[in-house]
Formats: sequence, C-alpha cells, structure tokens
Amino acid sequence: MPVTPQDDPYYRIRHSLAHVMAQAVLELFPEGKIAIGPPIENGFYYDFDLPRPLTPDDLTAIEAGMRRIIAKDVPFIYREVSPDEARALFRDQPYKLELIDGLAQGLDEYGETHHGDTVISTYRQDTFEDLCRGPHVERTGQLDPEAFKLTGIAGAYWRGNEKNPQLQRIYGTGWANKAELDHYLFQLEEARRRDHRRLGKELGLFHFSDDIGPGLPLFTPRGEIIRHEMERFVRELQTKYGYSHVWTGNVVKESLYKKSGHYDAYRENMFPPMVESEDLVFRLKPMNCPSHMTLYKEMGIHSYRDLPLRFAEFATLYRYEDSGALHGLTRVRALTQDDCHIFCRPDQIEAEFGLALNLIREVLATYKFGDYRVDLSLRGASGKYIADDEAWDLAEGALRSALDHYGVQYREAPGEAAIYGPKADFIARDVLGREWQLSTIQVDFIQPRRLGLEYIGEDNQPHTPVVLHRAVTGTTERFLGVLIEHFAGAFPLWLAPVQAVIIPITDKQQEYAEQVRRRLAEAGLRVEIDTSRDRMQGKIRRAQLQKIPYMLIIGAKEQEADAVAVRMRSGEDLGAIPVAAFVERALQEVRSRA
Amino acid sequence: MPVTPQDDPYYRIRHSLAHVMAQAVLELFPEGKIAIGPPIENGFYYDFDLPRPLTPDDLTAIEAGMRRIIAKDVPFIYREVSPDEARALFRDQPYKLELIDGLAQGLDEYGETHHGDTVISTYRQDTFEDLCRGPHVERTGQLDPEAFKLTGIAGAYWRGNEKNPQLQRIYGTGWANKAELDHYLFQLEEARRRDHRRLGKELGLFHFSDDIGPGLPLFTPRGEIIRHEMERFVRELQTKYGYSHVWTGNVVKESLYKKSGHYDAYRENMFPPMVESEDLVFRLKPMNCPSHMTLYKEMGIHSYRDLPLRFAEFATLYRYEDSGALHGLTRVRALTQDDCHIFCRPDQIEAEFGLALNLIREVLATYKFGDYRVDLSLRGASGKYIADDEAWDLAEGALRSALDHYGVQYREAPGEAAIYGPKADFIARDVLGREWQLSTIQVDFIQPRRLGLEYIGEDNQPHTPVVLHRAVTGTTERFLGVLIEHFAGAFPLWLAPVQAVIIPITDKQQEYAEQVRRRLAEAGLRVEIDTSRDRMQGKIRRAQLQKIPYMLIIGAKEQEADAVAVRMRSGEDLGAIPVAAFVERALQEVRSRA
Repeated sequence: MPVTPQDDPYYRIRHSLAHVMAQAVLELFPEGKIAIGPPIENGFYYDFDLPRPLTPDDLTAIEAGMRRIIAKDVPFIYREVSPDEARALFRDQPYKLELIDGLAQGLDEYGETHHGDTVISTYRQDTFEDLCRGPHVERTGQLDPEAFKLTGIAGAYWRGNEKNPQLQRIYGTGWANKAELDHYLFQLEEARRRDHRRLGKELGLFHFSDDIGPGLPLFTPRGEIIRHEMERFVRELQTKYGYSHVWTGNVVKESLYKKSGHYDAYRENMFPPMVESEDLVFRLKPMNCPSHMTLYKEMGIHSYRDLPLRFAEFATLYRYEDSGALHGLTRVRALTQDDCHIFCRPDQIEAEFGLALNLIREVLATYKFGDYRVDLSLRGASGKYIADDEAWDLAEGALRSALDHYGVQYREAPGEAAIYGPKADFIARDVLGREWQLSTIQVDFIQPRRLGLEYIGEDNQPHTPVVLHRAVTGTTERFLGVLIEHFAGAFPLWLAPVQAVIIPITDKQQEYAEQVRRRLAEAGLRVEIDTSRDRMQGKIRRAQLQKIPYMLIIGAKEQEADAVAVRMRSGEDLGAIPVAAFVERALQEVRSRA
Repeated sequence: MPVTPQDDPYYRIRHSLAHVMAQAVLELFPEGKIAIGPPIENGFYYDFDLPRPLTPDDLTAIEAGMRRIIAKDVPFIYREVSPDEARALFRDQPYKLELIDGLAQGLDEYGETHHGDTVISTYRQDTFEDLCRGPHVERTGQLDPEAFKLTGIAGAYWRGNEKNPQLQRIYGTGWANKAELDHYLFQLEEARRRDHRRLGKELGLFHFSDDIGPGLPLFTPRGEIIRHEMERFVRELQTKYGYSHVWTGNVVKESLYKKSGHYDAYRENMFPPMVESEDLVFRLKPMNCPSHMTLYKEMGIHSYRDLPLRFAEFATLYRYEDSGALHGLTRVRALTQDDCHIFCRPDQIEAEFGLALNLIREVLATYKFGDYRVDLSLRGASGKYIADDEAWDLAEGALRSALDHYGVQYREAPGEAAIYGPKADFIARDVLGREWQLSTIQVDFIQPRRLGLEYIGEDNQPHTPVVLHRAVTGTTERFLGVLIEHFAGAFPLWLAPVQAVIIPITDKQQEYAEQVRRRLAEAGLRVEIDTSRDRMQGKIRRAQLQKIPYMLIIGAKEQEADAVAVRMRSGEDLGAIPVAAFVERALQEVRSRA
C-alpha cells in the first residue's frame, strides 16, 4: 500500500528510487514489461515481467545502473496526457495499457474506483517515462547513491490476483543518507537475529504443528516455564493489589453472545460453532467479559458496599484470525489474556483506574519497558456515543485525573473511544524502538446494562455497575513473542527456563556436580548438568547459545572448597563462589525479578 | 438395575420387602395396578399406577401395612405357570400382562431379549402374588420390621419410555437389622449435609449458569483459590519429582484424532465439531495424549539418553457427557486433568511407575485419603491384547515389582487391562466410606506406535518409546467436589479460601484491625475483616458457617498487646497470641499442608 501523506519527503525519495530502478531494469532487459512500483514503509518495490528469473547478481547490476542514473542528475518531468496519447506512449507495455483503460474509466491502478480527478499523468526521468501521479524529487541527483539498497526478489501476481500472470517483484529500501540506511539495516539485522520464531526454535520454547492446526502453539517444557512464570508474576501482583481470580472455562453457549451483542459484532472472529442441536450451540470463548458478568449475576445480590469486585482470569481465548495474518506467537488463534473485569460504582472509576495504572506500571518496569506512552481515547462529536453525557464526563474526568495524579504523560485522542466508554492504551517501545500496544483499560457503560447487571445502592434501589476491562500485558503468547525479541532470548534469571548449567571439568566431579544440582534444585532453582562428552569450551559455548544465565564450572579445586566457578552468559567471570553464597545470590535475583 | 449376584442376602431381603410393600399398597388401593419392583443398591423400589398421587402420609400408612404383613410371618411360595395360567392370574394387571407377553416371546421384564430359560414363575406371600424369578427370604417373619424405611416417591415412566404412562415409584431402603438401617440413614444424612452442590452454594465456591451451559462450572474468587492451590500443590510436587510441564491448549484438528484412533473410539464423547471447511475441522481436546505425543515429535530427534521425558499439563479437557449424567462438580463437561505422559524406554517402566506411585501416595496422604486400594489390571487370555507377549510380561512384571518394592497392597485383575497395556488404579475411600477412583497409571504400547513416535537407541536404531499415562487426583473439578464432601467444606488451612477473619469487638479497633489485616496479607495469608454491624456472636457464628479456620478477635486488650484472640472453627479457643506468633503458626501450617 502506498505510504501517505504524499508530502512526506521519504515518499518522494522512495517513489523516485522505484522509477530509477525500473529504468535500470529496462536497461538490462529492454524487452521487459513493467507493472507498478509504489513507495512502501522503509522503501519501495517494482513489479516486472521479465524473460528470466532474476538472481542476486542481477540486483548488484541493477544497483550499479541506478547509481549511474543518479550520477547523471537528470530531472523528473511531469506532464498530462490524453488516454490516446497514453496508449501510444505505452504501446509496448500491456500492464500499463490495462491501467490506462482503467484510468479512462475512472479506476485507479489497483482496478478500484478512483474518486479523484481522471487526468492521466506521467513522470519522465532520462530515458524512462512512467504512468504516475507523483510526487517525486526534482532531480535524480537529489537521491543519495549510498542511501539505498535492493533487499530482495519475490513473486507477485499482477493486481494481486493469482489467476493473473506472476511477476517478479524487486524490493528496495531507501533513505535520505547513508547513516539512516545503515541504521535501518542494523535494525533489520537485529530484528532478524531476535526474531522470536527463530529464537523460539533455537531455544526450544515452542512449536507449531500441522497436526494441531495453524496459530495453535505447543509449548515445550522450557517454553511453558516462561509462560508460567509470566502468569505467576501478574497473579502475585494482582493478589497484592486486591484483585480476585475466577475461572470460567473455554466454552459458552452461543446464545450468551447474542445477548451481549458479540454475536453480531464479533462472529467473524470466532471459531466455527459447535452445533449440538438447533437450540444448543456452543462457541469457544473469544473474550471473558460475558462469562465474568454472568458469574457476577450468579453470585446473587450485590450491595454497593461489596463493590468494587475485581475478577481476573488467565483464560485461553480462541479467535479465528485469518491464516495469512498469523505470525509466530505475536498473532495466534489461542490467546491467554491477563484479563480483569472490575465491577464498580461510578464514583469508584478514578480509584480503580489509578490502581490498574499502578499495577501496569509496575509490570512494565519489571519487564524493562521503560519507554511507553498512553493514548487516552475520548468521546468525540459523533452521535455514536450512546450513554449519557454525564456518565461520559464523569469517566473521562476520572481517567484524566488519575493519570495526572500519578504523573503519567498521555495524549488525548478525541473521537477515538469505542461506543462503550473511554479507554487508555499503553503503547510500549521495545529495545528496537518498535511499538507494541500492551495494556488497556476500557471503561464500559454498555455491556453491564445489556446483560442486566445490578447492585443495590445506598438508596436501596438497583443500579447498573460500571465495568472496567483491563489487560496488563495483553496476552501471554503475544507478549512472550515480544519478550523473546526484546531480550533477544537472554531472559532475566526469574524467567530463564534453565537458570544455571553445571559443567564438571572431568568425570571425577560427577558426584559433586549431582550434589550441587540437588542443592540448587531444592532451593527452587532450575538447574541442569551438562553430561555430554564435549570439551569444556564446547559446553560453555552451548550454554551461551542457549542463553543460560549462569554456568557453574566445577573442578577439583571447586569441589574441595564446596564452591562453583561462576561464569555469566555475558562472558563475565565471577570466579569461585561458595555454593551457599551462589544460591543466596541467585534466589535474591529471582525474588527481585531484577 | 437389579443387584447381582442374586445369592447376596441383601438381595433377598430387599426383593422380599418390595413384594411386601406392593401388598401393602394394594391393600390401600385395591384398584391399583402394579408394574415392576426390583431390589437396588441399599434398598428397593416398586412402580404403581394408582388413582391419585401419593403423599408422605401414605408412606407412613404403607410402612404400617408392611409391618403387619411381616408380623403375620407368612411364607414366600414359588410356583411355575404356563403363559395362559399367568394371563388368567394377572387378568386385572395390564403391566403384568404385557410382561407375560414378552416372557412368552423370550423377552425379559425390561422388554429386552432374555437369554435364560423361558419358564414363567411367580412368588406369593399372603394375599399377594407377583410375577417373579426370586429369590426371596423364606418367610416374611425373617424381615426385621425395624430395619426398613420408605424413603421417597418419584415419577417413572413404564419401561423408562416417556411415551408410556407415568407411574408412581416408591423407594425404600432395607437392611438386616436396625443398627444397619440407622448407620445407613446416618451416612445418607451426612452425605446430604456434605453434598458438594449444597456446600458449594453456601460457601460461595462455584455456580452453574443456563447462559453458559450444562456441566460447565464457573468458579467464584473463593472457589478459584481452592482450584489454584490444588494445582499449585501437584505442580510443586511434580517439579520436585523431576516432571516437566507443557502447554498444548484446548483445540486440535480432528484429523489428529483420526490418526490416534480416538475419533473412532471416542467420538461420541467429544463436543460437536467446529467445521471451518470440509478439510479443516477442529475439536475441543477430550484428552491430552495425542497433543503431548505431537509435541514429542515436533521437538525433534530424541536419543535414548534423553528419556524419560515427563510431560505434565493442567489442561481443561472437554467431554460431552450425557446431560442426565451430569452431577455438580463430580460429573462435568469441562475437566481439568492433572495429567502426565511419561515417554520412556521399556527398561525404565519400573522406575517411572515407582516414581509416579510415590508422588500419588504423597498427594493422597496430604489430602488425608489414608484408605485406598490399588487395582492392577492385567492382560487376560482374550485375543484382544495386540502388543507382543514379551512387552506385556515386561510391563506387568515392572508394575508388580514396583508395587512390591514400595509395599503397596494391590489386587490383581487379570483380563481387565485395556488393549493398550496394563494399568494400576488407585481407589480411595472418603470419610463416608465411599470409593472414588482417583489416580491412574496406564502403560501404553499402542498409541506411541500409531502416532509414529521414536527414539534412537544405543544401537543407533529407531525404537518406539513406551508411554505411561498418569493422573494424580484425576480432574481438579471432580476431586474438588470429592474434597468438599470429604472435609464437609472445612478445608485445611492451605486450601481454605479465607484463612482468617478478623473480628473487631468495637469500632475503636477498626484501625488496628486493618493494620493486622495488612500484616497477615503481606505474609501471604488470605484474610478478611468482618465489617458488618452484627454483634460479635453473630460474626463468630457466620465465620463458623463459612468454615473459616481462624477467627481473630480484637479488643482493646489485644490491641494493647499487639495480639489477637484466636478462636478456631472447631470452637477451640487458643487465647491471645501475639500477631507475629500467629503469622508464624499459620504460615507453618500452610507450608506443611497439615
């Protein structure tokens, strides 16, 4: 999809590079046919119909050709043409002719109705003229010859339709200067190096299987420990903050979602129905709210003095994401939310929002996401906001006031609130500077009313409680994917699946190694002995690749001293430490989640 | 269903009581029609077609009539009759005539093919003659007039078919003497008092909702804590015993169950399919084994030195139990197994079985199930056992040897093993003497082969691992139901949802009460303050009804001494204890799971 706005300087650079690339390709393949070539995020591509498949060597030659065209410093020249002139100009370019036919009928280059003007325009640089709306840089000399790189070749169907001919797409990245390109390539390499799908395999954390189904991960013993520790941490904090935990399973009668409104609004994202009979249809739970609200009702009459009630649950939800959208752990069909629903009175919104805010901040700090921003989505002028103004004013005021009270910076986004009520989203930045929407607190006036929730007020009359929907890290699966990349697999001690590996120098230390292992395990540490026949350097290397925080090397000297020689995965050597002291140090590190 | 064997003395007593009851009913309702009246577990029933609905007063009159018939001391007289004689005898009894027609055609009294003799027989006592195969006691005087009781009236369709007329069924219980009857009635009352469905409501632990679906429980904050502690306990022990935990979700492609064989054998018990397309059908997971085995395969090549691998998981499984069979938590459709699959070499079966045995014994002891027996199901002569004799001999020998080694008493049951391999079931007796099958260890030769599992042996050749299926308490839901009844809701401290309630004597102690609450909560104890306006005795009474282990009463004296006056739910009064000492005592009790 083309990047907008078009007055973005990178748009001009990348769009111009696409044209320059097309010229260079046609210089190599004069009989080549050109399709389309838009700028995209971080770069550009162009689709070609060429007489043979491209090779990496071709990319080098094309890059050289591009540099020659840039060196010529020729201008990009705009002109408008009639459909007939355009057809004459592109008489040897069948894809362009198809586009011209479309443009003449008011369709854009994707074959979709184009609501702008119907003027046909071209841009020409040097010997190459392309059907194009622009804009471009003024001259090829404004492009930095060291600030672009062709990054790959892929197949692409003409107009994205697999019934059309397959074309060759060349991807490139383009920037204002070499420093920017280098930074981007470094980030790209870093992202590749940290890719949680790759690391997940290398560290043996999770698998996907054709036998289970797409988007449905299986966690190995090592992966499960991380999930478990993540959930344990949030549960511990939630308990400390006065939250309760409930359990509502994974299956619900479809009729509940008809009552709650999710059937109409969300059906497309649910797994297919389980039809027992015409009157009895079950669904996998795609969200917890209707279940938690049902539990609230089943628990009987609630007094205003019983509120707030805070129902947290680590339930695995199922959402039928499009198979094309699935991506490792960050986009799955089985998602375990660290979800909570807070049932409260309107006058409790501020305090409850503040409590949730603090909990979220404590969690993000522990995970070393220091850099996050808060988007506060508010009601806009639109008529879609159905609850009364008074309720909205109260809730929006409460959210602002709590954010101010705790000194949290936020950006107001009027008109971006859902119809239910205002919400705050926490968008955290990982070490690569990528943004992840993690935590959410959403005020809900609508669902509690829809499902008939009540509490008896001080006035002895029934009232509808407000519900705050709250997630801390979002879902365990996605956040684990993010964490793997954030830490590049080198988890802090409390999350590391194996916290220490014992490496005996010779067979004579086997018994002592086993004794040390037992002492560490009894203290609650996750420890293994490397019993392979590799040499010590090989064992250390493997432990480093497995990102195991501590290597405990054991020789005769250590055995005699009831000690272990401690090496950290960073390479740092802590020397010999008595076993008891190491246990104390490690436990302290685990407990503090440092 | 009739109790067998028929030579059980209770069978004779209960069968005879049914006939005596029928006579007494016909004396009250001479125009009444009789259907069938078999002995059942603990008693008997008889179905009648009567001119009006029975009342509890009728039962008293019928009991009196029965005692009169018993006092007459008349004999039970057997005779054989031809179908025509029988028809003449029962000419006013349409249900009996239908039975006679059936008997004449070789059908039994349930209308099913009867493979025994086709002789029609009757038993007569006093004025009452019934179509009957016996046996009975010899004379009514052998029945103890103080050892039976009519326990209830229910509707029942003739032959269990709702298209047939509805009859009135009278239930009774019958025993050899009054002491036995009293014991039975006490147990019955005790079971009613302990009924987990009643206690679950009173203690606010769980609910079922029409909006969610039958057999799908919702756990309140209090109920969830118990589940959580139960699972945490088993997880802790499993970790100590060297088990790993995995996570495999709740949804699986149906095709996996076709490969594993469960589709053919188990389809009827699965929730209905989720049909995405003809080629892509999902199922809710009714068992973990195929998922764990798939994970084993996905993890790559396993060496004989990597085994055993022990995959434990607390996954909620879904089984579509018949709605009539559902019963509180003890028979649900959502069941969270404390399941484990141990992948091992044949020579490891004994050690792994022994390990599992010890773990199970430690768990049962903690839950105060001191009284359990082990049934060892072995291969029989039947041809259904498809794995080779050598494997069976090895496995059966390993199981026996481990049981002997740990001094576990067991009963061998030849021919009761499933086709997969031998197994050991642990059947525990609760405080009421009822038996519950909890733990299981099943050896499996078949599924690993079917799903193509392998390990590379010392001989460098691929081998199929043996899998042990192991459950400790069975499922969390069912075991929680059992535990509620076993403890009559008075959970040991480590499981109690609220471990202590603080009861301030006057408003002046509010602040100190809150301070004590905070100190206990920070120590990890689950504690509440009773802030109601009730008088102290009312608060104590409520805490006792809620089975809260400790009541901490706080007055001016306690505040001054930084102490709490401790009362236990049993009524025992521990006097004033310094807060720090109470915390230490309680934590010690929790940690030891005493």
